[in-house]
Amino acid sequence: MSRPPATAAELATLVGGTLEGCATAPVRGMNGIDQAGPHEATFITSDQYASRWAASKAGVAVITEKLPLEVGADATRALIRVKNADLALATALEAFAPPPEWPAEGVHASAVIDPSAKLGKGVRIGPLVVVGRNAQIGDGCVLQPGAQVCADTVLGAGCVIHSNAVIRERCRLGNKVTVNACAVIGSEGFGYRPAADGRSLVRIPHLGSVLLEDGVEIGANACVDRAKFGVTVIGAHSKIDNLCQIAHNCQIGRMSVIAGLTGLAGSVQIGDGVQIGGNTGIADHRRVGSGARLAAKSGVMEDVPAGATWGGFPAQDILAELRVVAAIRKLPEWSRKLRRLLSEKAP
Amino acid sequence: MSRPPATAAELATLVGGTLEGCATAPVRGMNGIDQAGPHEATFITSDQYASRWAASKAGVAVITEKLPLEVGADATRALIRVKNADLALATALEAFAPPPEWPAEGVHASAVIDPSAKLGKGVRIGPLVVVGRNAQIGDGCVLQPGAQVCADTVLGAGCVIHSNAVIRERCRLGNKVTVNACAVIGSEGFGYRPAADGRSLVRIPHLGSVLLEDGVEIGANACVDRAKFGVTVIGAHSKIDNLCQIAHNCQIGRMSVIAGLTGLAGSVQIGDGVQIGGNTGIADHRRVGSGARLAAKSGVMEDVPAGATWGGFPAQDILAELRVVAAIRKLPEWSRKLRRLLSEKAP
Amino acid sequence: MSRPPATAAELATLVGGTLEGCATAPVRGMNGIDQAGPHEATFITSDQYASRWAASKAGVAVITEKLPLEVGADATRALIRVKNADLALATALEAFAPPPEWPAEGVHASAVIDPSAKLGKGVRIGPLVVVGRNAQIGDGCVLQPGAQVCADTVLGAGCVIHSNAVIRERCRLGNKVTVNACAVIGSEGFGYRPAADGRSLVRIPHLGSVLLEDGVEIGANACVDRAKFGVTVIGAHSKIDNLCQIAHNCQIGRMSVIAGLTGLAGSVQIGDGVQIGGNTGIADHRRVGSGARLAAKSGVMEDVPAGATWGGFPAQDILAELRVVAAIRKLPEWSRKLRRLLSEKAP
Repeated sequence: MSRPPATAAELATLVGGTLEGCATAPVRGMNGIDQAGPHEATFITSDQYASRWAASKAGVAVITEKLPLEVGADATRALIRVKNADLALATALEAFAPPPEWPAEGVHASAVIDPSAKLGKGVRIGPLVVVGRNAQIGDGCVLQPGAQVCADTVLGAGCVIHSNAVIRERCRLGNKVTVNACAVIGSEGFGYRPAADGRSLVRIPHLGSVLLEDGVEIGANACVDRAKFGVTVIGAHSKIDNLCQIAHNCQIGRMSVIAGLTGLAGSVQIGDGVQIGGNTGIADHRRVGSGARLAAKSGVMEDVPAGATWGGFPAQDILAELRVVAAIRKLPEWSRKLRRLLSEKAP
Repeated sequence: MSRPPATAAELATLVGGTLEGCATAPVRGMNGIDQAGPHEATFITSDQYASRWAASKAGVAVITEKLPLEVGADATRALIRVKNADLALATALEAFAPPPEWPAEGVHASAVIDPSAKLGKGVRIGPLVVVGRNAQIGDGCVLQPGAQVCADTVLGAGCVIHSNAVIRERCRLGNKVTVNACAVIGSEGFGYRPAADGRSLVRIPHLGSVLLEDGVEIGANACVDRAKFGVTVIGAHSKIDNLCQIAHNCQIGRMSVIAGLTGLAGSVQIGDGVQIGGNTGIADHRRVGSGARLAAKSGVMEDVPAGATWGGFPAQDILAELRVVAAIRKLPEWSRKLRRLLSEKAP
Repeated sequence: MSRPPATAAELATLVGGTLEGCATAPVRGMNGIDQAGPHEATFITSDQYASRWAASKAGVAVITEKLPLEVGADATRALIRVKNADLALATALEAFAPPPEWPAEGVHASAVIDPSAKLGKGVRIGPLVVVGRNAQIGDGCVLQPGAQVCADTVLGAGCVIHSNAVIRERCRLGNKVTVNACAVIGSEGFGYRPAADGRSLVRIPHLGSVLLEDGVEIGANACVDRAKFGVTVIGAHSKIDNLCQIAHNCQIGRMSVIAGLTGLAGSVQIGDGVQIGGNTGIADHRRVGSGARLAAKSGVMEDVPAGATWGGFPAQDILAELRVVAAIRKLPEWSRKLRRLLSEKAP
């Protein structure tokens, strides 16, 4: 990666925008419009942000081109007009991102690597990492301190396993998979049967495993349980946020995004490109079709059609749900009116 | 454990079922009806699954005996009829389960064991485990890599503490307790009081401890807090799923099952054999009677009688709740009707 | 700290209360009214507890002075009357609290400390701790076993980082900050953009960091994500319970308290002295004013005014919400009445 942009002109070139104002305005980093200093760039994506430009100390702003803001009289400031300020923001953040903090190439002396494990080229295995029997670590993988890859688990190339995360036995990760700190992949699923004497519960063995396909990211303190049999699958490029629970035998498609504190019960099926808001729950065996969207805090009890947007609990089409919410808000008033009507009708 | 069944006939014997079709059909493992190959057995517990048998590649199926399915013309397949296919599934899974991945007997060289700790016979203490001052580890316990058992904590026989789980000081575990990866047992309860000067909050000390009785299982990334005084208790054979929060001074009975992302506030009392759906919350000091069931996403604000089934938020009897949910769905329509009525009545 | 009180008289002095009954009744600890033995003190803060005093085995009770309980005829028991039994309880718990279990002063031989890290005076760094490049650990900090403080992160004086917690790179902690076991501070925020080819999602870099101000406490298995740019801030003396998710760029004020399993989406702003019940969710960019209170399981979609008490989903003023809940409970009945009315009106 080349050096980040240092001036408004260089930033304009990076994001493919049109410069107005001071081409040499210095850019040493990026910040929010209220926090940015004179040597920082900020981003203006709405009228709300545009109205704060005059009071902002930011020297430079990348702005959605249709917004009616002028750079103003200050000869030291600059605006950079772009079609899509969100995309420009991502591009700029990538340019300014500090290099990742990775362990040195090789294996730290304190790591405990089973002699039968296979390590790829250029791996970076940090302090106190544990790699189990017959595990395979692909080329260029990074295992941060305290990470564990258990027996018979296979990691593709370029995976990053963060501190104290645990990938249990017989799991499989594709290429460029990220597992954040303290996440647990491959715990046994949650299923019990009464013991023969009825005096205890016996865990049903979960013989299956977990597959995280290429580009999957798993949040900190999230859990993905292994399948009863077969495989719990998170499809390529899907992203699971912190503190989510993905139960045994779930099947998640490609490029789906699940926000924090969401729980999927056993054998849930999620299509491709699904977006799920935080703190949602989905009952076991339910299916959510590709392209569907679920509002935060939804509770899904029925299958969700592809492309639909649902919300509420029990979840339904979001427009029906919004009508219900609006009607509920008026309930106390309606109750009064109905009571009056009924008393008029009473004999 | 003896070797797993290798043919349909052996599997029929194992699960106590009646064989129809090819007795020598090979069985090398189990899988779902849509995933199983010709050398795998599957399970058919409903008409829905039965309808997929014809298209399935599975060589063998264990089937609930009353279902009207025939093995069909294919001389290479077999059906095994049983009274209870769920129980048969558990039995078969146990037979096919691979041996657990445990550290070698003894203490790994990288583990840090306080000299005052007492280790039972046959313990398996993995790499980078920490055992604190005066801790006691019962016979046959397994401490996976990175697990921690802190000072004065006592584990019974046959416990399994998974990777990076933390059992804090002065806790007590019975026999055959399982604590999954990254779970935290015995953190201080969440309670504060304003400082004398009103400018900060001071944590109220939690002097108590946690008791996990025999056969308890705690999910990955779950938390059980220590009591303010006395003991937070999880009763024998109760099972707590991933990412649950059990606050200080909760008392949970025997054989209760609590699904993922559920939170119990302080001093909640749960009876025996209670079943709690995922993402449920229970307010502090509330009691849930033995045998009660709570639907997923319930919010319990009042005591729940023994044997009752409740749901919703605030939770109530599930039948009342379902009537309310049905009525809510019709609200926009009722609002329109009522508005019409009222306009007719208007002077 | 001096030795804890050993008699009813000493306990009365400690909590500033008025003694009735046996001044020499022994006090070796504290317990709940139903669990306390004759050598333990308990606390009576309501009529409900007062009614259990006769049957309790406790030798001593600290009691809110206005409650009409008498010590009774038993010459071995004592009551201690105080204005505020909750505050007295906190004082007594502090007196009886066992000393914390800390690693020895210095650095354990198994810890992995980068040579460039700076360690303050009197630090206690336990086994298997990892301290990264250029990290700074303030005077008197305690790092429990397996804790990690990553590169360029700075801890003030007197912080306690519990077992297996992870403070990622470039974060800043004030003085006397506590991070409980397996919590993760400074994971990257959850934000993605479609890749140029539309076939994957690219994580938006999060260049920012996390600031936990003086006296902040973070619960076990909780997550605080780093900012996209700028800083995710938890203000002084605020307390975050177990299993909470604080997303990128959130700004939380001073002395706010957030109960377990609550999730704040990106850029949420919380004022000072806010109290948030468990399992609450707050949508991105929403603001909650100082002194506001949110009932458990709230779902906040709009800004909450300072000092307000809100609840429900979507959250609203708690009184309006309670009226709605009461009306909802009567819905099935109203539906029947309205149906009757309409049938009478039908032509």
